[in-house]
Order: sequence, then C-alpha cells, then structure tokens
Amino acid sequence: MLVEPAAQIDSFIDSFGNRCTRFFAQQGTLRLSNSTLICDSGLPDEINPNAREIPVQDLPHDVVRYLYNSRYCEVDRFSIIALEHFGSVPPGWSRVQAICDWIHTRVTFGYQYARPTKTALDVYTERFGVCRDFQHLAVTRCRALNIPARYVTGCLGDIGIPVTGVMDFSAWFEVYLENRWWAFDARNNQPRIGRVLMAAGRDASDVAITTSFGMANLTHFTVVSDQVQPAQAHL
Amino acid sequence: MLVEPAAQIDSFIDSFGNRCTRFFAQQGTLRLSNSTLICDSGLPDEINPNAREIPVQDLPHDVVRYLYNSRYCEVDRFSIIALEHFGSVPPGWSRVQAICDWIHTRVTFGYQYARPTKTALDVYTERFGVCRDFQHLAVTRCRALNIPARYVTGCLGDIGIPVTGVMDFSAWFEVYLENRWWAFDARNNQPRIGRVLMAAGRDASDVAITTSFGMANLTHFTVVSDQVQPAQAHL
Amino acid sequence: MLVEPAAQIDSFIDSFGNRCTRFFAQQGTLRLSNSTLICDSGLPDEINPNAREIPVQDLPHDVVRYLYNSRYCEVDRFSIIALEHFGSVPPGWSRVQAICDWIHTRVTFGYQYARPTKTALDVYTERFGVCRDFQHLAVTRCRALNIPARYVTGCLGDIGIPVTGVMDFSAWFEVYLENRWWAFDARNNQPRIGRVLMAAGRDASDVAITTSFGMANLTHFTVVSDQVQPAQAHL
Amino acid sequence: MLVEPAAQIDSFIDSFGNRCTRFFAQQGTLRLSNSTLICDSGLPDEINPNAREIPVQDLPHDVVRYLYNSRYCEVDRFSIIALEHFGSVPPGWSRVQAICDWIHTRVTFGYQYARPTKTALDVYTERFGVCRDFQHLAVTRCRALNIPARYVTGCLGDIGIPVTGVMDFSAWFEVYLENRWWAFDARNNQPRIGRVLMAAGRDASDVAITTSFGMANLTHFTVVSDQVQPAQAHL
Repeated sequence: MLVEPAAQIDSFIDSFGNRCTRFFAQQGTLRLSNSTLICDSGLPDEINPNAREIPVQDLPHDVVRYLYNSRYCEVDRFSIIALEHFGSVPPGWSRVQAICDWIHTRVTFGYQYARPTKTALDVYTERFGVCRDFQHLAVTRCRALNIPARYVTGCLGDIGIPVTGVMDFSAWFEVYLENRWWAFDARNNQPRIGRVLMAAGRDASDVAITTSFGMANLTHFTVVSDQVQPAQAHL
Repeated sequence: MLVEPAAQIDSFIDSFGNRCTRFFAQQGTLRLSNSTLICDSGLPDEINPNAREIPVQDLPHDVVRYLYNSRYCEVDRFSIIALEHFGSVPPGWSRVQAICDWIHTRVTFGYQYARPTKTALDVYTERFGVCRDFQHLAVTRCRALNIPARYVTGCLGDIGIPVTGVMDFSAWFEVYLENRWWAFDARNNQPRIGRVLMAAGRDASDVAITTSFGMANLTHFTVVSDQVQPAQAHL
Repeated sequence: MLVEPAAQIDSFIDSFGNRCTRFFAQQGTLRLSNSTLICDSGLPDEINPNAREIPVQDLPHDVVRYLYNSRYCEVDRFSIIALEHFGSVPPGWSRVQAICDWIHTRVTFGYQYARPTKTALDVYTERFGVCRDFQHLAVTRCRALNIPARYVTGCLGDIGIPVTGVMDFSAWFEVYLENRWWAFDARNNQPRIGRVLMAAGRDASDVAITTSFGMANLTHFTVVSDQVQPAQAHL
Repeated sequence: MLVEPAAQIDSFIDSFGNRCTRFFAQQGTLRLSNSTLICDSGLPDEINPNAREIPVQDLPHDVVRYLYNSRYCEVDRFSIIALEHFGSVPPGWSRVQAICDWIHTRVTFGYQYARPTKTALDVYTERFGVCRDFQHLAVTRCRALNIPARYVTGCLGDIGIPVTGVMDFSAWFEVYLENRWWAFDARNNQPRIGRVLMAAGRDASDVAITTSFGMANLTHFTVVSDQVQPAQAHL
C-alpha cells in the first residue's frame, strides 16, 4: 500500500487471518493507493446443492466462533425466529439459499438507508439497507441455525453482468458447509465472476476497509479494474 | 475436565488464547467437574496510578481488536457519551478508575436483573444488573475512549473480604495500560486477592463458561475452594 | 378509594375515558384500599367468529388512535412482519384469534421475565414475559394489520378455572371488530368469566395501576374477591 | 381542505384537541391543498425566565399525560440520565432552556439522518437528526424531569431570519410551566416569529401531517406563505 505523504507502515495478520496495515497519519490530506494483479478462475461462484451441514460437534475448532454473536449480528435475538422461518427447509445448502432468497426478495437496497449502527434485527424490521445490511441479516440467521457464517468485505466485479461499470467494493458472506467455506450473497443472490475477497470476520465491525481513530473524512474513493489476459499477466 | 458419563474430550486454544474444551454429550444427566491447584501471590490486585494510556498507534497489533465493537459492547453508540462523561478526567489509570467508580456507585446489583440480551446501553439506562453487566458498561466506555479493554470470566475468592463464604464465579475486566493488562472490577471496585482468570474475550459472548448447542438445563453449580499452604502445595 | 393516612383525593376522567384518582402522599407508609360490588353476567367472554374487520375508512373517529404506535407497541417495526405472519389468515375475528394462538403457544409466562422497558419487539425475540408482555405483542400485531387494539388492565377472576385461588390483577386486550370492542387474552387464550375492566389505553404506560412521581416501594398487594348471589347483592 | 379528485371529507377533534380530517382516497394521483389567513402577533416566541415548574400534584388533570412515555419518547429509559445531566440546573424555565442548549449544541441537523423509527435514545447516542429528532430528545428529557412536554407540528416562518426563503413545515415542542404552555425549539433554539401550530401530541406518531393506511408516495410538497398587512387581511 502506498501512503502519501509517506508514513511508516506496519503490517500484521489479525486473529481472523486477514492482512492488516497500520500507520500513523499526519494532519492534512491523505492519499492511500494500492494496485494488484489478481488471478481469477473466470468462473462464477461455485454452487453445490449437495453441500451438507456439519453437526456442531464435528466443526473444526476455528470455525466454531462463527456461530457466535457479534455487534451487528444478534444471534441470541434470532434463535427462535430463524428456526420458525427456515426450520422446515432441508438443512445444508438449500437452507442457506432459502435465507438468501428471503432477504433478496424482501429487503430493498438503497444507499440512503445506510447507518453505522444498523443491526440484523433492524434490517429484519425495516427491510431497507445496503449490501452490508443484507449480509448481516443472512449471517445472523445462519448462525442462529448453527451454520457457521462469516462476513466478507471485498471487491465485486461486473463481469457477466448486463449493466457494466458497476464494479465496486462490496460485502458478501460465506458459510461453512461440507468441508469448506462457500460464498453467498444475499444482496445480489446470483453467482458472480471475480469476487476479490479482502477480509473476512464476524461482521462489518471486524473488517472495515479503514478504521480511523481520530477525525477522518473520506473525500474521494475510486476503484479501477482492468481485465488482462494471462499472457499479459505474465509479462 | 471430567465428564460423566464419559465422552471424548477435545481441547484447543481459541483466537483469544483461551483453552477450550469441546465434547458431545448424550441425552440425560451430565456432570462436569474439574479440580486444580492454583498458586496465587496472595496479594491484592496491583494498583498503578501512573500507568499511562498508550496512543492507539503504539498499541501492539493483537491488542487493537479490544477497541472494537462486540455484541454487548456497542462502542459505536458510546463514542460521544463516554467522551462527555470522562473526557475531562486525566487519561490513563485515573480515567479507568473514574469509569469504575461511576458504575460502582450508580448501578445496583441484583441477580433478578440478569438477562442474556442485556447490552452496555441497557445497563446505562436501566442501572441494574449482575457482574457481567457492570463490566460490559465499563469495557464499552474504555473502548470508546480508545483504551483497550477485555472482558474476563473467572473465579473470585473471598480472601480478605469481611463477609466470607462468597467465593464464586464472577466477571471482571482488564485494560491495557503502559505495557500490560491490568485487572479492574466495576462490580466490586476494590482490590481483591485471588482472582483466577479462566478466559478473556471481547465480551460475555466470547467467554461463556459453557456454550451448548441444544437444550441444556443447569440443575446444580457448586464451587469449592480451599486455601492450602505452599508446603502442602508442593506435596 | 380510601387513602391512609388521609389525603385530599381528586378524581377525573382521562383522555381514554378512564376514571383516575390523584392525591399527594406524605412521606411514610401509605395504604390504599377500595371495595366495590360488581354485577357480572356470569358468562364467559363472548365469542363471535363472524365479527368482521372494519375498513379503516369506516372506523369511528375515536377508535382510529388505537391503530397508532405507543411506547411498548412499536407498530412501525411490525408492519411487514405482521403481514407476513398473518396476512394469509382470513381477516376479522379469526385473524385476531390466530395472533392470540401464536403468542399463547410460543411465549412462556414467568414473573422473573418482567421488566419495565420490555416492548413488543422484545417479547417477539425473547419469547418470555408476564401478562402485559403477551398483550403488548398481540396489540402491536393487530394494529400493524389495521385492527384497532387497546390494552386493558383489570381484575381477572378464577371462576370456572380448575385451579382456583388465582384471582388476580391482570392485563388483556380488546379489539374493535364489527361495531364494538371485544375482549381477547393472549396470555390465557380461553374465554373467562368475570373480567373486571379497570382501565383501557394504548399500552401499559397509559393504564398503570399506580403512577408515582417520587420513590414508592410496594410492600404489600392483596386482592380479595367474594362471589355473592344477586339476592345478596341487592341488599 | 380541498381534495382532488373530490372525496367526502370528515372532520373531527382528536383526544389531544387537534382538528383532524379523514377521507377515503381512490387509487391514482391525489392532490391536497389548503389555504388560510393567520393573524400573528408579529412578536417572537415569548420568553419568561421566571416561569416556574409546577409540582406534579398541582398540574391540571389534562396536562399529566404529557409526563408519560410514548413511542419515540422513552421516558422510562431517561429518568436517571436526565436527572444526572440537568438535576443541578435550577428548575423551571432555565432547566428547559439548558436542555435545549445541550441538544442544539450537540446534535447535528441533516435530512439524510431522518428515519421513521428513530427514538429519543437513538438521537442521544447518534447525535444526528432532523427537527423531529431534536424535539423528541428534548420532550423526553423534560418529561423525565417531571416537566410536561408535548410535541408540536406546524409551520415555521422565516420572518426575521437572515437567510430567508426557508419557511417550511417544522416541529417544535411546548412545555407547561407556571400556568400555560410555552414554545421551545431545540432545533433552532432562538425566539422566532410566526409559528403556526397545526397539531400537538405526545410525539410525532400522534401528529403526523398525514397518516395513510395503504401505499402513498409523496411526489410534491409545496408551502407558500405571503405576509399580508392587517389592512389587506381585513378585505
């Protein structure tokens, strides 16, 4: 990462396995930039309707924590509601998909509905939100049904999407089924090409793109992505 | 840990550094027991009024996460209130102590006020709670003031306390000042002898004594502690 | 009403049509008592499965306000949820009954679950409460479905109930169907004999048995009811 | 009020003394208009620093209800906080003014912060809002301190305000001191000329400008005010 004006940058791996960068910024204008070349399979999100739910007792140790409460995912307030809503849906992949379908159909997207303190319960009652809100509700319901779920921040391309030019930072979520994590997206609710996972955590509080201690006003935010051919990439 | 009827026990270290034990319990009565010999300094909680607050940029990497939101500690809802209340108190030890004094004086203890979903904001408005509630409010305010704070579950002896026989499982919290974690206790708010730290995390959700997936009714809970002399301990 | 030590009592009718009594109490022990003879039909709550819902535009003016929000009945947070849950049930009596059945079946009664700030949304997520909580959730859902509903405080006899001796102050609710108010009770959910309506309002905040401004600790609360024959009553 | 296309209009006085109009609108575009000539004193809001608080026991019967909870004014959650914040300020006018000053200084106005479910507690923690939010917090704190307060919807002129052209529908609140209701405005917090009170109630839920049962999208909203001279007015 490039910081202008220059600052001493420190990098570390957090408890969720994410690479984090810290630095001390002087007062004034700050410009952060980064460039990377990502090798993507070019395939849409994998779908596996046969992926089974793992009984809690068989989950890997480091996956169990993704069943717990977090700031925006009040699992304790959804334990009964989630069972009432989705308890009759077959467990595993289909249950997660049913949760996504429900949210995708019944929550309306709009940037004006964003607010920093909005929780899964707020999304459930208000039915408006941004991508983070869609995923928080999905994550919370999965956890309430004992399906490990984690919140993901990343970059979502527009490859294969009719309306191009919408490549943007986004949020989705992952669930642990069978023996691995799988991407789901209650906001878009369709397989997409080119998800670039930047960080995963319990909810948005863990994986904010930036966390600043002190006043920090965002004035510009630009994402540029170019699709290059493997041949070019090797140059 | 002894489990009756016997079950295969699995042990691991969680992301907070706590030793955790997992097992699959059959339906029916379950008895968990454990016995340990602990070497305690016999000294009350250390007090260091000179312990300084560490600027956020100088905090160790693995301490930073204790500034963030968690289920019962809505730091985002306290950022302004905490500053209004304690911003004029000198930073460092005295500010943490002021937070403890405030809570100890203004929140009333009572087992009947416990409820699983009670958050720091609820404690602030209701002013009733159990030990976990006292600590959640303290932890949240410290974090809102950029002082790393973590919630601790453990066993608190009654050594040196006028009313003996109150040795019990309890909760307190720790803050990171100067170069280490220090124990504080907004519930008791006095230095105590013999704190046995069992687990530390972001809030009660991380360090529940037991987390059960499936119906589990607690029927008995007994803690026995005997003070033994070092000579005996070496036998 | 008899107040000991004696105080000047003022009586008035509030905006909901309830008779209220006000007085200024001196510091010290206060004893309030009252005695009344009530003529009851001896019949259980009337049931009328044919009672129709009245379109909002045809509701009497003074009934419309019972469609609105109140402190413990967040109608605005239930407008979508209520429709999802009960929108497919035929409107009118059967819809109200379905709401009562749902709550009666899924919420567990317990005095230890009472707390003054508990709202309908809390009851929906926690599923525990006292009679007031059952009725708040029912009232909120009815209003969210455009069925006027009001909260009632009163005395509920144990006539005809297998376990006698449970005569007590209680809460239930009323809905406006066809051309009048009808009693429903999500807590007991069965027709009862001898409901003595004391006050009706938007929620418990409007019809507290006592509202005291200043410290007031309840030390005793006794209700005595005797069934007398009409002949006696005429004496 | 003129309704186009024409509908049968029904008018009544609600329990707060407000004149309300009801009608049944057909599907399609609806246009509501009204025109009125108001005689205003031309004087700014009256200020009376000597206006005393009335002890609860001496309040008129119909004023007492403005001490109670309502949907957006959770008095029960502010009873302690309000006393801590303003208990040391002399009671009466100065206490209400201190509440307005606090809110005016510490809450930031912005239309993007409006949301229908925002309560006084939300305003206290978030510190952002529209005029209704400013007043809800003020009303709640006054009630928590036993000062009757009611929420007012109306039209606020820009007479005497440097930036003209801002005449708009607005909200303020009134408190009962000495022997009458007085206008306060935590949003503008300065005496204004030409407040046209349209409705008063417990909070915004009681005095919405329009309450529609069924889908209703606001497409245009225009307020035109002309200052006319008394001579003209008499024509």
